[in-house]
Amino acid sequence: MNTLGNDFQVSILGESHGDVVGVLVDGVPSGIPFDHTDVQPALLRRRPGQSDVTTPRDEGDVCTIDSGTKDGVTTGAPVLMLIHNEDVDSSKYHEFLTKPRPGHADLTARILFADRNDYRGGGMFSGRLTAGLVMAGSLARKYLAQRGIEVAAHVRKVADVEAPKLDTVEQIRENVEDNLVRCADPDAAERMTEAIREARDDEDSLGGIVQCIAEGLPPGLGEPLFQKVEGVVGHAMMSLPATKGVQFGQGYDATEMRGSEHNDNWTYDEAGRIETAQNDGGGVFGGITSGMPIRTEVIFKPPTSIGQPQDTIDLETGEDTSLTVEGRHDPCILPRAVPVVEATMACAIMDLFAMRRGRGHGGA
Amino acid sequence: MNTLGNDFQVSILGESHGDVVGVLVDGVPSGIPFDHTDVQPALLRRRPGQSDVTTPRDEGDVCTIDSGTKDGVTTGAPVLMLIHNEDVDSSKYHEFLTKPRPGHADLTARILFADRNDYRGGGMFSGRLTAGLVMAGSLARKYLAQRGIEVAAHVRKVADVEAPKLDTVEQIRENVEDNLVRCADPDAAERMTEAIREARDDEDSLGGIVQCIAEGLPPGLGEPLFQKVEGVVGHAMMSLPATKGVQFGQGYDATEMRGSEHNDNWTYDEAGRIETAQNDGGGVFGGITSGMPIRTEVIFKPPTSIGQPQDTIDLETGEDTSLTVEGRHDPCILPRAVPVVEATMACAIMDLFAMRRGRGHGGA
Amino acid sequence: MNTLGNDFQVSILGESHGDVVGVLVDGVPSGIPFDHTDVQPALLRRRPGQSDVTTPRDEGDVCTIDSGTKDGVTTGAPVLMLIHNEDVDSSKYHEFLTKPRPGHADLTARILFADRNDYRGGGMFSGRLTAGLVMAGSLARKYLAQRGIEVAAHVRKVADVEAPKLDTVEQIRENVEDNLVRCADPDAAERMTEAIREARDDEDSLGGIVQCIAEGLPPGLGEPLFQKVEGVVGHAMMSLPATKGVQFGQGYDATEMRGSEHNDNWTYDEAGRIETAQNDGGGVFGGITSGMPIRTEVIFKPPTSIGQPQDTIDLETGEDTSLTVEGRHDPCILPRAVPVVEATMACAIMDLFAMRRGRGHGGA
Amino acid sequence: MNTLGNDFQVSILGESHGDVVGVLVDGVPSGIPFDHTDVQPALLRRRPGQSDVTTPRDEGDVCTIDSGTKDGVTTGAPVLMLIHNEDVDSSKYHEFLTKPRPGHADLTARILFADRNDYRGGGMFSGRLTAGLVMAGSLARKYLAQRGIEVAAHVRKVADVEAPKLDTVEQIRENVEDNLVRCADPDAAERMTEAIREARDDEDSLGGIVQCIAEGLPPGLGEPLFQKVEGVVGHAMMSLPATKGVQFGQGYDATEMRGSEHNDNWTYDEAGRIETAQNDGGGVFGGITSGMPIRTEVIFKPPTSIGQPQDTIDLETGEDTSLTVEGRHDPCILPRAVPVVEATMACAIMDLFAMRRGRGHGGA
Repeated sequence: MNTLGNDFQVSILGESHGDVVGVLVDGVPSGIPFDHTDVQPALLRRRPGQSDVTTPRDEGDVCTIDSGTKDGVTTGAPVLMLIHNEDVDSSKYHEFLTKPRPGHADLTARILFADRNDYRGGGMFSGRLTAGLVMAGSLARKYLAQRGIEVAAHVRKVADVEAPKLDTVEQIRENVEDNLVRCADPDAAERMTEAIREARDDEDSLGGIVQCIAEGLPPGLGEPLFQKVEGVVGHAMMSLPATKGVQFGQGYDATEMRGSEHNDNWTYDEAGRIETAQNDGGGVFGGITSGMPIRTEVIFKPPTSIGQPQDTIDLETGEDTSLTVEGRHDPCILPRAVPVVEATMACAIMDLFAMRRGRGHGGA
Repeated sequence: MNTLGNDFQVSILGESHGDVVGVLVDGVPSGIPFDHTDVQPALLRRRPGQSDVTTPRDEGDVCTIDSGTKDGVTTGAPVLMLIHNEDVDSSKYHEFLTKPRPGHADLTARILFADRNDYRGGGMFSGRLTAGLVMAGSLARKYLAQRGIEVAAHVRKVADVEAPKLDTVEQIRENVEDNLVRCADPDAAERMTEAIREARDDEDSLGGIVQCIAEGLPPGLGEPLFQKVEGVVGHAMMSLPATKGVQFGQGYDATEMRGSEHNDNWTYDEAGRIETAQNDGGGVFGGITSGMPIRTEVIFKPPTSIGQPQDTIDLETGEDTSLTVEGRHDPCILPRAVPVVEATMACAIMDLFAMRRGRGHGGA
Repeated sequence: MNTLGNDFQVSILGESHGDVVGVLVDGVPSGIPFDHTDVQPALLRRRPGQSDVTTPRDEGDVCTIDSGTKDGVTTGAPVLMLIHNEDVDSSKYHEFLTKPRPGHADLTARILFADRNDYRGGGMFSGRLTAGLVMAGSLARKYLAQRGIEVAAHVRKVADVEAPKLDTVEQIRENVEDNLVRCADPDAAERMTEAIREARDDEDSLGGIVQCIAEGLPPGLGEPLFQKVEGVVGHAMMSLPATKGVQFGQGYDATEMRGSEHNDNWTYDEAGRIETAQNDGGGVFGGITSGMPIRTEVIFKPPTSIGQPQDTIDLETGEDTSLTVEGRHDPCILPRAVPVVEATMACAIMDLFAMRRGRGHGGA
Repeated sequence: MNTLGNDFQVSILGESHGDVVGVLVDGVPSGIPFDHTDVQPALLRRRPGQSDVTTPRDEGDVCTIDSGTKDGVTTGAPVLMLIHNEDVDSSKYHEFLTKPRPGHADLTARILFADRNDYRGGGMFSGRLTAGLVMAGSLARKYLAQRGIEVAAHVRKVADVEAPKLDTVEQIRENVEDNLVRCADPDAAERMTEAIREARDDEDSLGGIVQCIAEGLPPGLGEPLFQKVEGVVGHAMMSLPATKGVQFGQGYDATEMRGSEHNDNWTYDEAGRIETAQNDGGGVFGGITSGMPIRTEVIFKPPTSIGQPQDTIDLETGEDTSLTVEGRHDPCILPRAVPVVEATMACAIMDLFAMRRGRGHGGA
């Protein structure tokens, strides 16, 4: 229901304008050094108000770790992490109960929860709940890093501005934090920034693609049929708000390649280790890791919250009407999605790990 | 592990060259009229040897229903369906143990199962196991049809030949069975056929996209966080062999749209029912169905089995080598993937249904 | 792992001497009126320090509801409930790391968590974590009461003092709160109190049996094979600390009955409704509810914490040694187990309900 | 639903008078030598028609292994095992649709499955489906035996005839197959046989207790809260037909012991290994194995099928009526329950193992 993962279980909780947003993580190996300083940097990258290409809303996200650690080390017990929300004005959301915003869950949430859902700030449908994923992902990344597994993401596409597909974590990290949009390619980053500012000035919004790479995985993770790497990672990514697609390796581009071109031939590297000559498959064969980097792309639609007037219905009158969503919006969610995609990838890989190694709590 | 679904559970079993391939389905409502005539037509559409654009291998797939029905009606007990494999020659697969085929699971399967996997015909990694999904999907479709829910798919893209994205099941069904590739657009179908024959003559293979639409769903299916429609359907689709991506609504194209263009505005139709003026979101808001058709696309890579010599390694000598995969291959899997994608969609929707209505066995 | 239930999921969290103990409940129907006043009375019944037959420790358990409700009504989102622990002195527990207490989890917890477990106060193995179950159970009971389903428990046996097995909730409620041990039979209650005081004065402890009845259930709950009522309820009860058995209907006594005596004959009551002439089976046939009350008994061992010196080992010296566990102990856990057993029964029934009715959030 | 286990998953299928009964087992480590000769002996022990203290019905249960092995060794793929039922006369069961047998699931099954259930021979509620558990258990036992883990059960009580509680597998095995009732104590066995024959001659039936011991387990199996050993094993045992209770260690007798007597003191054995001086707790502390034998008892009610006339209702007339269940019945199910309890224990332990070691397929 609201839990992701089989053996590393991430349960998101809270509401955008409620008391808290947070996460309960179960299946945590004991012995991982972990305190709030491991979480805070990623929360800051996700946080609104970072730059003029994101929303100017300012949410001071400070995380507490309420269970599952002792003296800064995980004990093996479930880890609860919370952010206590600050008081915010929810009054404008009342209107959306009867005038559902286009593209938002206002109406479908009402149907699902029989009009009882907490609609303030979007409630549990708010993008704010991804903070829980970021917290869980920080824990997963700490564990994975100890095993030489690294995860990195960047913005590869905004509107029609594309950066090259990258192959390694190092390529991503080189420049990704040097620009506001978190694109690893400085030239593309500049054009993306331009495009976002233009959309913002038009009270409009832009979509795009986040590319994510996970490196250092052992071969043999994943299960043959329904816990394939692509199934597990894809399910996790498709759970993020505003995602409309996920792809692996060459993804969409594979449709225009021939088998002779797309097949990743096996070869020995200079040290005699098995690798593939290229990595078009994205590090996975038959759903099982090959040891090569996992390459994923997540497609985000343009944010639904825009400042322009939009057509909708009035449930009270039964008539068509129009609506303007006031407030400060993200003209493009991609820069803030980068840490969320990384966290989601880390949680998914952690689950694949846990499926293979079991709940051997003392493994960290 | 090898089970898909939370409340409608599809467990695939068998091996390509073993005694059987099949499926055990649990969470089946009682009272669905169902016998092997409901399964056989879909199996024939999936089956090899249908035309010169698929593999000329001929597998006479005859299904038995071994439990869970009485007098041609489901009882609520688990439904076992089996196809008994015919004897086939597995000798050529022995070579791939030490010379893993590029793009295949030969090597990753060995690692996963510590050299004990049944490698004959690809074992449980074979595309042949999708016959189990087709059987389960036939059961799901019978139930869904009673509730006015229809599912249809067609080949929308092969290599660089694209057909238009469609909006309704009816549009798909009009022409889809009139051509060998199962593309709803006759012109595109002709060019696709051409392209496939050309690739086949080159001992090569082509990828593409299957579009699938599900229509007639009630609003309110799906869960807010991790059982979103996109998560559940996406996970299922990414479990199919050779898939490299899945997308909903406008998918990839959404990256080049602005919010003002992409947002699906709410409106009343002439009968006063709520709908959206367009369906770019693919029938889902916040992960919950809106009542509009679900529109999905599944990206398939070009088949890995090609007749050309390919580079690989020899695990016995520790040297690079090359390999030619003899035999008859699908130059393009898309035409045969259509019934599999439809079945997978039906299973996923059935699961979303079961999550909402519970295991109320007498609901059919 | 640390979650109970399929569709009504109760995830316990926290540590005895950590920051919090609590529970995250998922699969909660929207629309249940619920605030902390619905929880507090049951917490007080579970709480230490109530009387001289329980431990004189005083834990001021005050519950907060941190998510999943709005204006005192459930929204359908996950409900987080926490008790913030007060500062306590954990110093004495350090000794048990190397001198494991007999009957406790000191040593097995160390093995499980590779010496990283939070051992203070027993950590997550502490009986204090049942407070989370009590909170979740309060929510379940509120929902069930709206549907006419009531749950009640009492202490039926302490040491060799037995009270009669009861048949209805009303019989239990008549006297259960009139005595310190929470036994529905006043005479037996007196003798139980006596026995407990005697054991307490001997620095010893006593076990016994809690009987629990759930009434008003519709027929048809449960699943035929592995989600039988007895499996679901039994699993839940066997998760409580200090339980050594669970039985249904006549339980142990059924072993000395003949079939002709034990079989519950079907009959019509005066209003023409179907019932059974007796209820030796405990309201369940083939694992499925019959509509008659569910009758369960839970066997508790005598508490392991006693004031007498006991033999154990010293892991540092590798020699046998002895140990005296200082502090205030429950000479008999049964009186405080009554609200925990009721809460556990309510959670299990809620899960059986959810399995049948689905996650139809607006059902309350 | 119809699946037992988290990581070693046992899915029972089939109907008593349908085409097959069987089991699909997933999470099977690769590399276990396993063929039908590993299954058949346990099936023969479960089978009806063995002696005059069981039913004289003769079901020739011959098992096929249809997937998941190659050359007599498990591959890691799901293992399907089937018994093809012989044709039997189901005509007498039609009467029970309107005249439900006391104690049976005739009526509750109808309610659950909305009158669509396969009622012939009890359908999926038949004790015959335990053959599937026996088959899965045979596979688990083969794996566990390779790790030095042994499981044995015997009949410890029939009606008021009790045999001593035993401590080791060896004690059970010494005499258990030397008598018809499978009681490890020859004297008690004789009296049990007598009692059963007497009940049989009275057209009546007897209940009792099966004791089961599992030996050789490593310490550290189980999870602290809801996957305790007692929860996992207890759930499995309570899924068997006709069970009314399960207990661990001293079980019911613990209610009359004091803590000072019941606590299992830690000590070093002569070789310096940690053990407990006695094993009243049944090898489990805090839900986690200590390394001592697990001691469980399963309580069985007297079989509901007896030859005497019994009162019931007639659903067609809405009047009370009476019924005589013709045919051959088990006057006592205990002797045939012994292999079923052993198999169930083996499956539960296998699951506890899999939770700890993961789905590391190459571990056997």
